[in-house]
Amino acid sequence: MSKKNNIFGIYPVLEAIKSETEIDKVYIQKDSENDKIATIVEKLEQLNVTINHVPVEKLNRLTNGNHQGVVAVTSPISFVSLEDIVEKTLSSTKTPLFLVLDQISDVRNFGAIIRTAECTGVDAIIIQKKGGAPVSGDTVKTSAGAIFKIPICKVDHIKDAIFYLQGSGIKTIAATEKTNSSIYDTSLNEPLALIMGSEGKGVSASVLKLVDAQASLPLHGEINSLNVSVACGAFLYEVVRQRNL
Amino acid sequence: MSKKNNIFGIYPVLEAIKSETEIDKVYIQKDSENDKIATIVEKLEQLNVTINHVPVEKLNRLTNGNHQGVVAVTSPISFVSLEDIVEKTLSSTKTPLFLVLDQISDVRNFGAIIRTAECTGVDAIIIQKKGGAPVSGDTVKTSAGAIFKIPICKVDHIKDAIFYLQGSGIKTIAATEKTNSSIYDTSLNEPLALIMGSEGKGVSASVLKLVDAQASLPLHGEINSLNVSVACGAFLYEVVRQRNL
Repeated sequence: MSKKNNIFGIYPVLEAIKSETEIDKVYIQKDSENDKIATIVEKLEQLNVTINHVPVEKLNRLTNGNHQGVVAVTSPISFVSLEDIVEKTLSSTKTPLFLVLDQISDVRNFGAIIRTAECTGVDAIIIQKKGGAPVSGDTVKTSAGAIFKIPICKVDHIKDAIFYLQGSGIKTIAATEKTNSSIYDTSLNEPLALIMGSEGKGVSASVLKLVDAQASLPLHGEINSLNVSVACGAFLYEVVRQRNL
Repeated sequence: MSKKNNIFGIYPVLEAIKSETEIDKVYIQKDSENDKIATIVEKLEQLNVTINHVPVEKLNRLTNGNHQGVVAVTSPISFVSLEDIVEKTLSSTKTPLFLVLDQISDVRNFGAIIRTAECTGVDAIIIQKKGGAPVSGDTVKTSAGAIFKIPICKVDHIKDAIFYLQGSGIKTIAATEKTNSSIYDTSLNEPLALIMGSEGKGVSASVLKLVDAQASLPLHGEINSLNVSVACGAFLYEVVRQRNL
């Protein structure tokens, strides 16, 4: 992790929260009994920021100065609001295409997916504030810089994003092997949000219940397991093909 | 790297060469002046095995015993001959599909590609003996075990493999962004070998000259750069779609 994206010390971190700086995650010194740090933790929890309680040595490695038990890692990019990007996309002449990532945890997969999304005309990538791979310097690197070229929305809960998209007339399709509907029998020409799940578990059960449709890629071997960034690419390129982009 | 796939010491390595054990690569102690080691190097060069000249400390780390200046890393899988697999595939009722990898150097990409190939009914993966990612324990891991389920051919030169495939009536198609022919306008229903190039350079110029066709994926962003395993997945899944597999 680059040190240049870190903000440390109680007052600088409080100030960052106050000025609505994009904070990706925060490291708090284990066993801290400082009241101001308790306040920081409380504010961050309201903002759904990931908090890691770590030994002091970790904080020392992350900073060159006096961290006072708290280091905030800021995001190298600015996020957009889901409402703004949906409105903007719906008012353009292009058929909307959103990509929702339900807890992709590996930064290389995350980066490869961002590259693919940028190459396939995805209008925005929607991720959850907690649980997925961070938007960090490593993401910039593994995305080959694509992260600067595509809007990213961070939402509190993927489920709320699904509801919002559906309410805006966007069809939600989950990529899952738990269906017999092939992506090749699914029409992808209408306004669309594709939902990809985590490496281990796929799209979570609670999200699967909400979506308008499920679609799978045919699997012909014994392994029945694709890398998630590869699967995402095959889905997004089927959209490109069907839309004749 | 696991130590269990290592053979070390002059006579064991000579014996491994004599018995045609699959050797993935060999580490030789730098500045070795041993005649027998010179003989080993000569034999390995004839076999096109990758040779690394390394400090003695590296050899000490690779072994628990007396390495005598030479450690051979054997492959966790057995390779098949191109001739055998082409003959076998042509005599089956299935339309052949081969995947040729021209110097994929990253083991994670290599593993993800093997997984995809296994899921899309690829009959064999063809790699070059020198220059690409090794077939190692890491490959087993990143391929999620798929490497044990799909035949792998190691050839001296990719170009010779292309000639051989063409001579067997198999159409060779290179994946490259250096063409205006979209994969979606290319018929993939005949016996086929898809050639994917390296992460940095793509399919090499000398191979591009030989192939029967070139095909690209549409690119709609500014980055114009897909991860090679993602691109490979989009190509192979277009074969699956066209063949209605």
